[in-house]
Amino acid sequence: MQHLSLEQAQQALLAILPKLKTEPVAIADALGRVLASDLAAPRSLPASEQSAVDGYAVGCSTSTIPGSFRMVGRYRLGDSPEQPLQHNEAVEVKTGGNLPPGTCAVVPREKTRCDSDMLLVEEMVKPGQNIKSQGEDFCRGEIMLGEYTQLDAGSIALLAAMGIETVPVYRRPRIGIVNLAPNVVPAGIPIRPGQTRDSNGPMLTALVQQHGGTAVIAANAPNREMASRLLELLEEVDIVICTGGSYTENSSDAREFFTAIGARVLYWDIAIQPGSHTGAARLDSGLLFSLSGNPAACFVGYHVFVAPVIRAMQGQAAMPKRVIARCINGFGKAANSRRLVRARAWYGNSGWEAEVLPGQKPSMIRSLLQCNALIDIAAGSPAVPAGSSVEVMLL
Amino acid sequence: MQHLSLEQAQQALLAILPKLKTEPVAIADALGRVLASDLAAPRSLPASEQSAVDGYAVGCSTSTIPGSFRMVGRYRLGDSPEQPLQHNEAVEVKTGGNLPPGTCAVVPREKTRCDSDMLLVEEMVKPGQNIKSQGEDFCRGEIMLGEYTQLDAGSIALLAAMGIETVPVYRRPRIGIVNLAPNVVPAGIPIRPGQTRDSNGPMLTALVQQHGGTAVIAANAPNREMASRLLELLEEVDIVICTGGSYTENSSDAREFFTAIGARVLYWDIAIQPGSHTGAARLDSGLLFSLSGNPAACFVGYHVFVAPVIRAMQGQAAMPKRVIARCINGFGKAANSRRLVRARAWYGNSGWEAEVLPGQKPSMIRSLLQCNALIDIAAGSPAVPAGSSVEVMLL
Repeated sequence: MQHLSLEQAQQALLAILPKLKTEPVAIADALGRVLASDLAAPRSLPASEQSAVDGYAVGCSTSTIPGSFRMVGRYRLGDSPEQPLQHNEAVEVKTGGNLPPGTCAVVPREKTRCDSDMLLVEEMVKPGQNIKSQGEDFCRGEIMLGEYTQLDAGSIALLAAMGIETVPVYRRPRIGIVNLAPNVVPAGIPIRPGQTRDSNGPMLTALVQQHGGTAVIAANAPNREMASRLLELLEEVDIVICTGGSYTENSSDAREFFTAIGARVLYWDIAIQPGSHTGAARLDSGLLFSLSGNPAACFVGYHVFVAPVIRAMQGQAAMPKRVIARCINGFGKAANSRRLVRARAWYGNSGWEAEVLPGQKPSMIRSLLQCNALIDIAAGSPAVPAGSSVEVMLL
Repeated sequence: MQHLSLEQAQQALLAILPKLKTEPVAIADALGRVLASDLAAPRSLPASEQSAVDGYAVGCSTSTIPGSFRMVGRYRLGDSPEQPLQHNEAVEVKTGGNLPPGTCAVVPREKTRCDSDMLLVEEMVKPGQNIKSQGEDFCRGEIMLGEYTQLDAGSIALLAAMGIETVPVYRRPRIGIVNLAPNVVPAGIPIRPGQTRDSNGPMLTALVQQHGGTAVIAANAPNREMASRLLELLEEVDIVICTGGSYTENSSDAREFFTAIGARVLYWDIAIQPGSHTGAARLDSGLLFSLSGNPAACFVGYHVFVAPVIRAMQGQAAMPKRVIARCINGFGKAANSRRLVRARAWYGNSGWEAEVLPGQKPSMIRSLLQCNALIDIAAGSPAVPAGSSVEVMLL
């Protein structure tokens, strides 16, 4: 097995994305979901000519300024006027109300005076003014939202305006999370000295949720049952993430389990810090990841290996945005291998800035608090002085 | 009633934020929730000294290089060694495993050789090396997460590691949404010509969700029941947003209803486009907003008046980030009053860029698709040429 670079491993993963099935979802539950097909407009918006202001719809005029029109009616919102307006006639209309056939223009109320049943208009009436034409926002039949659109408030507004109540979306990517470390204990079970509370399961669950997926933490299992546990899990999920498990040179529990179930290893061991002991394998359409049990290394591994897959499965840009930032506090260690430093980045008055977070050991959770970026430091780089430029992935 | 500027209106709102109650939430459901108190670490992390590598814990040594240690045992993960290590003794340990008392350092396996029951170490042993000290990540009693922390994957990992299963959080802001336009029909009810499908309710619901709140769309009600409908709603929610309703110079349905229930008007009519006919009122601790019924004006009004309140109620920065961007396509109209143009902004290779979205009439939903920014154009500004600099609020 040759050792791949980080980018080669990412490309190997993106070449074999699990495919998501589709499901219908009510638009009230559709925020953040991803459309599974192009959607054509079922009708025009607006459906017919409407007034853009409160005022008066006027028919064609032969009069000079001030023009005068005979008031022949008054429409309320929700009316559907059918009686055509004749030359020199006017009707009162409301913003968003349908206009009668024969409307030449709508004059805002504040530009008019009424004199018994005559409407006096004090400025030139331009044909078409203040008329929202049929279909000016969307025309019936046009593709209004494309496949892979992630539904936000604006697209949900559009669906609602079109009277669409459910839409086809891709199912959320389903991720199973397996703890291979025998000393790591999930919540709810009393803990003994020497044991550690599971934090990777809840952390990965939250990360998966943020990226549009759903996660299930598998119950702990003894090693002899692990292969069948993984096979069962792969029936239910698209991706399995294993965390922890002993690693000794050229051997890891995770790799042995992956091989035991017949999965094909895609890569193993990537020269990054933290979390170099990491790998992935494929079984049929399912992907299996082995990430470090050290919380910060697990976090980094999720972001650089798993998150791109979860995003790409949903039609989104796989890779995080990279920017050059000024590192305000620097990083005191030289990088033997490529180093991904947990950081907080922000766009300030003088451009992007990043702060190396405290607690950069792979085991330390402190570095994850407020972490929204990884500083990517090339292998062989010296320490990073405060104020120097660094390349940052925005998470 | 004097007319306030946009900023004056925002300040008036932020001065009287509704207070949120608190509730406990399980950490599995805590993503995005906001802590309602400082949290102190209930124990140290790690709880005791642990090995940072797979290798050998060694006692103090008097030997030279290569040092030799007598192998006296082997600990597995989850063990809690109590037998102290003596001078020149070694035990096998795993990454993350507890160390026996008397451990001087941990030597990685790859730096050692074993010769029957003797461990030979081929480099200088530095006292303390590869030992994770008790509390090196967090010390018992320190404030680990402050009030108003919005819980993300990292803070959830920390809570889980500490064995905390529920945390006190602020209740989500609750927002009631009321449609005052008689021609606007919610989903599920047949629509007649002249009527419009409600899009503001679903749009505002999605926006409120994105900002951490929960929204309830009130059933339509005739005007004569509206005052009592608003009072009922204010029993349940922190904020009411009314959309639409007729507006005629110096009078609006919303304002009449707000006054009828005894609410004190905070501001009315703000010189922005779109959505100048807007206002807010206060009744006891509740806030009422009147936003335009035009979808794009409603969207803008939500972002500049309501969203700051919802964020500030949760202890977050009220105002969106503002950046200077290059407007790639320009905007062809002069701004009589201050104009908030729907746009898409991104950080590109040459800095921030923004594209004016098509469909800038206040009624047009097209401008909301992909909208993630508002270009803020001062009153009296000429048209914006393509390529010029603009001030942008990032939504």
